[in-house]
Order: sequence, then structure tokens, then C-alpha cells
Amino acid sequence: MGWGDLGAFGEPSKETPNLDQMASEGMLLLDFYAASPLCSPSRAALLTGRLPVRNGFYTTNAHGRNAYTPQDIVGGIQDSEILLPELLKKAGYTNKIIGKWHLGHRPQFHPLKHGFDEWFGSPNCHFGPYDNRALPNIPVYRDWEMIGRYYEDFKIDLKTGEANLTQIYLQEALDFISKQQASQQPFFLYWAIDATHAPVYASKHFLGSSQRGRYGDAVREIDDSVGKILKHLQKLGISENTFVFFTSDNGAALISAPKQGGSNGPFLCGKQTTFEGGMREPAIAWWPGHIPAGGVSRQLGSVMDLFTTSLSLVGLQPPSDRQIDGIDLLPAIVQGKLIDRPIFYYRGNEMMAVRVGLYKAHYWTWSNSWEEYSKGIDFCPGQNVSGVTTHSQEEHSTLPLLFHLGRDPGEKYPLSFASDEYQGVMRRISAVVQQHKETMVPGVPQLNVCDKAVMNWSPPGCEKLGKCLTPPKSDPKKCFWPH
Amino acid sequence: MGWGDLGAFGEPSKETPNLDQMASEGMLLLDFYAASPLCSPSRAALLTGRLPVRNGFYTTNAHGRNAYTPQDIVGGIQDSEILLPELLKKAGYTNKIIGKWHLGHRPQFHPLKHGFDEWFGSPNCHFGPYDNRALPNIPVYRDWEMIGRYYEDFKIDLKTGEANLTQIYLQEALDFISKQQASQQPFFLYWAIDATHAPVYASKHFLGSSQRGRYGDAVREIDDSVGKILKHLQKLGISENTFVFFTSDNGAALISAPKQGGSNGPFLCGKQTTFEGGMREPAIAWWPGHIPAGGVSRQLGSVMDLFTTSLSLVGLQPPSDRQIDGIDLLPAIVQGKLIDRPIFYYRGNEMMAVRVGLYKAHYWTWSNSWEEYSKGIDFCPGQNVSGVTTHSQEEHSTLPLLFHLGRDPGEKYPLSFASDEYQGVMRRISAVVQQHKETMVPGVPQLNVCDKAVMNWSPPGCEKLGKCLTPPKSDPKKCFWPH
Repeated sequence: MGWGDLGAFGEPSKETPNLDQMASEGMLLLDFYAASPLCSPSRAALLTGRLPVRNGFYTTNAHGRNAYTPQDIVGGIQDSEILLPELLKKAGYTNKIIGKWHLGHRPQFHPLKHGFDEWFGSPNCHFGPYDNRALPNIPVYRDWEMIGRYYEDFKIDLKTGEANLTQIYLQEALDFISKQQASQQPFFLYWAIDATHAPVYASKHFLGSSQRGRYGDAVREIDDSVGKILKHLQKLGISENTFVFFTSDNGAALISAPKQGGSNGPFLCGKQTTFEGGMREPAIAWWPGHIPAGGVSRQLGSVMDLFTTSLSLVGLQPPSDRQIDGIDLLPAIVQGKLIDRPIFYYRGNEMMAVRVGLYKAHYWTWSNSWEEYSKGIDFCPGQNVSGVTTHSQEEHSTLPLLFHLGRDPGEKYPLSFASDEYQGVMRRISAVVQQHKETMVPGVPQLNVCDKAVMNWSPPGCEKLGKCLTPPKSDPKKCFWPH
Repeated sequence: MGWGDLGAFGEPSKETPNLDQMASEGMLLLDFYAASPLCSPSRAALLTGRLPVRNGFYTTNAHGRNAYTPQDIVGGIQDSEILLPELLKKAGYTNKIIGKWHLGHRPQFHPLKHGFDEWFGSPNCHFGPYDNRALPNIPVYRDWEMIGRYYEDFKIDLKTGEANLTQIYLQEALDFISKQQASQQPFFLYWAIDATHAPVYASKHFLGSSQRGRYGDAVREIDDSVGKILKHLQKLGISENTFVFFTSDNGAALISAPKQGGSNGPFLCGKQTTFEGGMREPAIAWWPGHIPAGGVSRQLGSVMDLFTTSLSLVGLQPPSDRQIDGIDLLPAIVQGKLIDRPIFYYRGNEMMAVRVGLYKAHYWTWSNSWEEYSKGIDFCPGQNVSGVTTHSQEEHSTLPLLFHLGRDPGEKYPLSFASDEYQGVMRRISAVVQQHKETMVPGVPQLNVCDKAVMNWSPPGCEKLGKCLTPPKSDPKKCFWPH
């Protein structure tokens, strides 16, 4: 989902009344970022509070590549990483993930091995349908065992776009919240639904309900679902004791537009790029009685901050034996303070850009390769900023391209290298970057090796269902990331 | 000002608290249009309720040209046109224009000859400073006589951007409202301030107050001023008896970006084009006790509707002896109804495009000429939609380019000519266009002839001020409109 997909963020059809109301009852964060322009790394960063390059969710196959976790990935989240639910568990929280895990699907990477108490959802994206010979359909788990597969047992009709998945995930969330309230147990719910990822779907009730086509239908269903979750919290009388945060893991995928793609508002390009369109996210914090209603924050925030902020909410400190990139946002959200901190934009192991205050410096630019672009794969359709949306990986480390995101949110007008403004700002940014690079200890890259043998052939529980498939012989290879 | 310039419409710095509050107390109109992508024609249309091609504010020098009223224009608003204040006067209203007139500056075009009772402002844009030899500085009028000139008596510091004009116009508005309230006389105030037109200015208090640079400073000053006007109405106890509408006369001028240019949000291109960025406008209706607070309307609206809506508010019918393009928006604004009506996008005398429902068909495409573009004049910076943002005037009358503005607000993906959707929609649109063209009676074009002799050399009142200048010999010529 992109920054521009909600009415509160200027989507011209303004079809998200529930999320807009959530914002008017809570706080809109205008400058909130994913930790990566891609799903898996961003989600790993959210749960570890650490940049993907630290927690291992990156590749060294080639710099700047958009690696994630398809089902033939060998790597995943390491035991050495400390996930948010592991820490919350110590404070008595019950932790549940509903939806897409995406931190590796092999047994050792299972969410219940990394702090979660319950899981209902899938390890990978709902791509497919697959033939179960070359590629198996993605399984859906309930806790330790699969209970079926997408397309086979959990229908997604690619023609009509109909699927009940968001409704199933919604009901699961409402039930979990009810159960926790009934047992008076604190909880952490990570509601990580698949929508609005392509192939885009919505349930029958929402199909055709949007001016925006199927993508808009999916947005409406999410909007409606969030509204129902918030109302449920209020009905149960626990809204003033529950911190809710809505955001996305990367910008709208413009390659799927217009039929299945969203909007990044006035920002440049989309998912898979380190321009604002790829990483600036819609973000709303909601906590009645604590967060001032109708607030707006310009605090530079990141999904990684949700790690540290959540710990702060329960009175825990983040781990001190490692670099944590997330900061505690409560002073910004509850008291309206502004905390000075940079935002780093990575693609794989390459620091592409950095934001300090309103300035953003690009050390590398890249949309995608000429080769891919010539096949019609376009991360910036209809947009072409000369020397910025480059189709080769261009290094600018000596003279980074500098933009002022207040005057130029669309990253169209690099500041003149000769200007005093450029000189002064770059001195400040260079110091930030130097410190960042000097203290960087990269994790062991998890997204380098792929092997068809590790795919979801026979997840636990397949025997009971008669859904075990025979894997091919192991043949580990360097993953191929075309972008 | 562009659609994307207000916080309520998704401007990423969200710096317009007063206009955003106006929207939350009133109604946001998401699909509201200028009558032209340029200032003069749009303003003439607002006051006559008629398309520029009917009221004469166009050129036939070449089709699709962006003609307006610089100070060497010979034409202006014709006596045969009936302006809103002429009609309101009959209903006992006192009518005042504060700010830019732009409907011709020669004596016969004076606003007080066309229904206004009072005027404080300028006949043309605040371009300059001029040398008073080749070009005279633009005069500022109080009612019938000039009281000084821009840059000479009304300072605009182009270097610092400082000017008190918006403050002066604000005070004038507050005083007028107070006077009318004191005398219990109904009033029509046309607060047609110059800002945010380039050269962009703001008063000292607002300079540097925005994250967006000088343009943002000007927006903040307008926002603050509108807030003060609304509070003034409330303080005087007449807010429930006063209909207020905020909008702009064309999209943000991207040629002035990033230093002096605004934002058209997710829409394509800007001022001077008939893409959405050129004509979709921010629009807020406010009338406490009558318009439901926090409402949102998808009614297709036009500045021309303000003519008919205003007449409706005072119980008058629009003239029946001529075609009126504006419709009464009250059913949409007060009762939330949706009225089916098309929007026509003209450049000069050429119907470039038409919107019916969510569909927009381009019969002609043009950004600007290759010749101008090669000089660095770019109406769509950083944007290039192949076959759409064309640099020659391209006719598509046989097979118009069709876009669905819900799925594709950025006009990037024309529908396939072969699709059923295209065929069905174009049948509907063709009927609308045919009817429109068949009944079109163009006015006498006012923007064809220019003459340096008619410029603001010696406006009435110049003698008292010692500011009369000697005009050159009359030498009427075809106006040169480069775009």
C-alpha cells in the first residue's frame, strides 16, 4: 500500500472512512518509512527493530538488489535475532501473527520458534496458483501445522478477484482479541494481512465497491476491517489500554498499475525503489485517551520504531548487546516532541540514500535495469526525472544528489552542487553517513541462496491432509534477483 | 493553487490547519474544476456561469492556445455578458471584489461597470517590476480610481519575497464584512487575491514559516487569512447566514517549481494544460448549520457553478436568454445528491477533453510545443506519458484517448480502443459531445488583439498621484500566445 492510498493522505476518491476516522481520533504520521522498499526485509526489520542489512534480510549477490523470501529461499530469520514477541512474552504478553510471515518458511524459521504463541496465515506471498509439481501452492498454517493451501483450500479467483482471505483474517483477529480480553491477558497482535499485494483480491461484498477498481476494493475491505477491529476494542472496553498502529511494508507497486496498483501520492516511483514512493508509508497511531485526537506528526519514523515503541509501552528496554535502529516514538506520538534522527534507504546491502531533516541525499540512484525496463517492467510509469530515475546503478557518493523534500517532495529538482545550501547540508549529512558506515556490522546475508528442494512441498500437517508433495533433489543456487 | 496544495487534499507537509478545519466543518469537493487551465478565462467563467468560449475569453489565433489578459490586451468582458454581481445587486446585495480582476482593464471593462459596487485591487497580474517606459507597473484601484502601482506604492520585494498584499487584502475583507454586518446589508465578497501566483510573495510574519519554501509561505498566509475571515463571520454572528466557498482558478503552475510552484497531488501536469493537474482544484464549501460538517462530495463541479449556486442561494433564476454552463450545487452540497453532468476541458476555442462520470476522453492532447519545451518551459516536469503529454497538438477526435479517473487519476493508462468498456463509454460520451458542439454559440473572441497603447499608462486617478504616463502610438497586433 502506498502513502497516497488513504483518503486522509489525499487519495482522490477518498474511500477510506474508517482509517480516516482512525486518523481523526488519533495521529497521522506524515514522514513514516518502511525499512526497505520490499516486503520481507521490511517485515524482518519491523520485528527486530534493526535494518535488514543487520538482521540478515538482504543479499550480497549484487549490490542494491531487491531480495525477498520466495518459497525457494534457503535463508530466514536467525535464532540470534531477538524478535519483538520474544521480549513481550517475558512481560506476560500473548503474541499472535495473523497473515503473511515472510521471514523464511523452513522449520527453523517458523514464527512460533521466534516468540509468537499463535499463527494463522501463510509463510510466503499468495502468488499462484501453482501446479504442485514445479512449484507447490503456498500453505496456510494454524500454529504449527498447515491446514490447507492457497487456491486449493483457500480460494482466490484470479478472474473475478474474489477471495475471502481478508474476512477470514479479520474474524481471526476479532476472536483473538475477544479471547484475550475474556482471559484478561495482555496481547500483541501482528495483523499482517496479504492484501493489497498482487494478485489483488477482495471478498464478494467489496468487489466493485470502489471507484478505483479491484485494488480500491481491497483497500476498502482493509479499511472496513480496521474499523471493525477498532470498534471491537471499544466495545470490549479496552481501547484506552490498546495501542494500535496502521502502516504498510513498502510503497505501492506501480508495476501492477493501473489494474492492481495503488498510489504513492505526489511521491516519485514506487515499490522496489528508494525514492519516496517506494518507502514513505501511510501511518496512523491510535490510542484513545493517550494520543491527542486529530494530531499530525512530522517525526521521521520507521517501521523499526514499532519494535522499540512497543517495548517502551510495556516498560522494557531494547536489547543492549546489538545495534537497534528503531527509536521510541512515544514522546513524538503522545507528547508531540520531535526527535532528530536520520532515515536510511537501503536496497539490499547498499545504502542508496539518507534523509536528515527535510533533506534527502542519494548516494546511489537506480530504478531498474534497461534490460528489465525494455521488457515493460517499469517502477516509475509516466515518470522520468533525468539523472534521478536511472536505469543503471549510478553512484553519486562523491557528490550525492540532494533534494529538499518540503519544497520538492517529488524528488525532481536536485540542489545545485555549488550552492551554499548544498555545501552546508552535505557536511551535516556526510557526518551522519560516516558514523553509520563506520559502526555498521552487517548480518549474515540470508537471501543469497535459493533451492527448489526447500519449497513448501511437505509442511508439517501435510500427512493428515494428504497434501504432502515430493521435493526435487537439492540443488542450491545463487538466487536470481532481476531488479 | 493546485489540488494537492492543502493538507486536507494530501499535501505532505500538511500546513493548512485553517482550510483543513474549514473542510472538517464544511464539505470537501473532490471533483471540482476550473473552467480553464488559465486565470482570466476561468475568472470570467466564474462570474458569468459560462464557458470562456461562450463569454469571449478565448482566442481564435490558433486553436488550443492559452490566452489571458496581460495589460496590452484590447478585449475584455462584454456588456452583453451578465455577471453574478449584476444579478445579486437586484436582490439587494452589495458586491465587492478584492484583488485581481483580470477581465480586461480598459475603462469599459471596469468591475464597477459590471455589477460590483466596490473594488480594491488590480486589473492584471502583479508581474513586474516594469520600467514605466516599455511597460507600466500594474495599478492598484480603490473603486473608480487608481491609488498607486505595484512595486512603486505597493511593495513586492522579489529578492526576499516580502509583500504585505495578502494582509492588505485580508484587512479590506474584514472591514467590508464588518461594514455590511453593521448596516445589515447582504453582501457578495469576491476575495480574489493575487497569491499564490508567481512572483510568489508573503508578508514578513509568514516568510520562512513553511517547510515548502516561499510558495508554502504564501499558502500559509492564505490559510491563516481564510481562518481569520471565517472566525470574523462567526464573531459577528453571521456564519450561519453566509455561504463561503474556497477554490482556485487553475492548477499549480509547475513551470514555476520548485521555488515558486505548487502541487497538483497525484494528477498529471499543471496549469496551462487540460490534464487533471491543470484544472482539478481544491474546493471547500462552508456554511455552518446548512452544510453537514465533515462532508465529502464527488459531485462533478466547476467554478461556473458558483454563479448558478449563488443565484439559487438568493432565490434568483439564472438568465434564460443564453446558455449557462454552471449548475446549482446546493442539492449536492446541502443534501448530498449527485447530479449527472459533464465537464468540458477547453484550451482557447478547442474542446480538448470531456469528463462524463469517472471517464475522461481526450479529443486533443498537448502540453506545449517542442520549440518552447526545448527552451526549458515544461508544463509536466518529471512526467512523460507517451502519446498523452504530447509536444505537438495532436487530434484524437476519431478515437479519443479514454481514461478512468478512479483507477487511473494520473491519466497514465489509456483504455484499449478495442475493449468493450471503451466502446460502451465512448458511445455515451460521443452523444454528450455531439450535443455540446451542436448547441455551441461561441462568443466574440476578446483575446485575439494586443496593443501596447492600451496598457495601464494613465488609469483614472493618475493625475492626482502624478503617475500618468504617455502611451505609445496605437499599433494593434495579433496577440502572441506561445503555448
